[in-house]
Amino acid sequence: QILDAIAGFFIDGPLAGKHILVTSGPTHEPIDPVRYIANRSSGAQGTSIARALVALGAHVTFVTGPADVAPPDGVTLVQVETAQQMLQAVETALPADAAIFAAAVADWRVASASGSKIKKRKGTLPTLEFAENPDILARVAQMPSGRPRLVVGFAAETDDVVAHATAKRQRKGCDWIVANDVSPATGIMGGSENAVVLISDAGVEEWPRMSKADVAMRLADKIATALTV
Amino acid sequence: QILDAIAGFFIDGPLAGKHILVTSGPTHEPIDPVRYIANRSSGAQGTSIARALVALGAHVTFVTGPADVAPPDGVTLVQVETAQQMLQAVETALPADAAIFAAAVADWRVASASGSKIKKRKGTLPTLEFAENPDILARVAQMPSGRPRLVVGFAAETDDVVAHATAKRQRKGCDWIVANDVSPATGIMGGSENAVVLISDAGVEEWPRMSKADVAMRLADKIATALTV
Repeated sequence: QILDAIAGFFIDGPLAGKHILVTSGPTHEPIDPVRYIANRSSGAQGTSIARALVALGAHVTFVTGPADVAPPDGVTLVQVETAQQMLQAVETALPADAAIFAAAVADWRVASASGSKIKKRKGTLPTLEFAENPDILARVAQMPSGRPRLVVGFAAETDDVVAHATAKRQRKGCDWIVANDVSPATGIMGGSENAVVLISDAGVEEWPRMSKADVAMRLADKIATALTV
Repeated sequence: QILDAIAGFFIDGPLAGKHILVTSGPTHEPIDPVRYIANRSSGAQGTSIARALVALGAHVTFVTGPADVAPPDGVTLVQVETAQQMLQAVETALPADAAIFAAAVADWRVASASGSKIKKRKGTLPTLEFAENPDILARVAQMPSGRPRLVVGFAAETDDVVAHATAKRQRKGCDWIVANDVSPATGIMGGSENAVVLISDAGVEEWPRMSKADVAMRLADKIATALTV
């Protein structure tokens, strides 16, 4: 970690002078003061990506939900809990040369969140009403002005990975989608390896299964190329 | 931690020869492969209690949900995720001389949990149907035969702490309730201190605010007294 920091300060890498926003981790959406809805995301891939970008000389703003893994050194760290807080942190962090949305943001929040603990009553079940969360990726990808030059989204899928991710790229208006299959059988969620498909206007690029650190370095290299041509 | 283990092996404490079951941590109830409902529980208080019991010579079976803190050394460790898995682990661990239910078990699970990721569709919100989870505390406290001699429940409340906890003790049929106020303003949830009220047939005992480790030692002492008179 000390090495990361030293690398960030001293190496005049290909991303020196670039500001890159990276989101990471899950969001937690409160139901009441003691219960919440969460996404399974350890934050491992987002953290590795931030670390790889710092190593290439970028100034990274790292906006993270409550992740399992420690945040990387050498970044501007912003810790949030909900999707709405994440959106606010992202808007505050812009402008940026690139924005990498690796966080697993909750699509919905509980509209009927209670200020006191919901009590269990014999024979009655709680009813949760949901509201749609802001779509942070789409909002930044479709900014009418000041849009980052490169906007990268992620798609964690459990079936039809390429089809779902290709449609997502179109719908959101982002430049790249990094998609993966997070079905429990793959062991990717919470594990140290990842097998991703990169979808861009150049088509579909399938990467072999490798460590999350290697996925991060390969992606950081591609980002550096995209921002410096 | 090594000292804990040595204490457990060599000190012939007041709880030597006793088997005590401790549950700890939150449960996670799946919504789909990537989303779940969780309780805010770091597992810190339950872990401290198990450690204090081991130090007094008890053989502890420690059944824990996905907690933030590492489990104690010197226990028989059983790791679970859902309330249903926790019940099964508890039933497998019995008989015991005492059972301490410090886990924050979800009252409800999602009855309509999906095997694949629920997709976001424009203008539609998901509907979650709930089912009541087994009441592990009540089930063990009301065992017709083979009930542990001492059954201790916990009550995390945000208002009317003593009234809610006294009613809970009555309803569940347990011997003691350890109650606390987990309103965000107290800083107890996720923090290192606790301020508890112990409710038994002897009445209501209000303990001053102290570290979770001190709450654990005081409680372990009381348990030792209760089991050895």
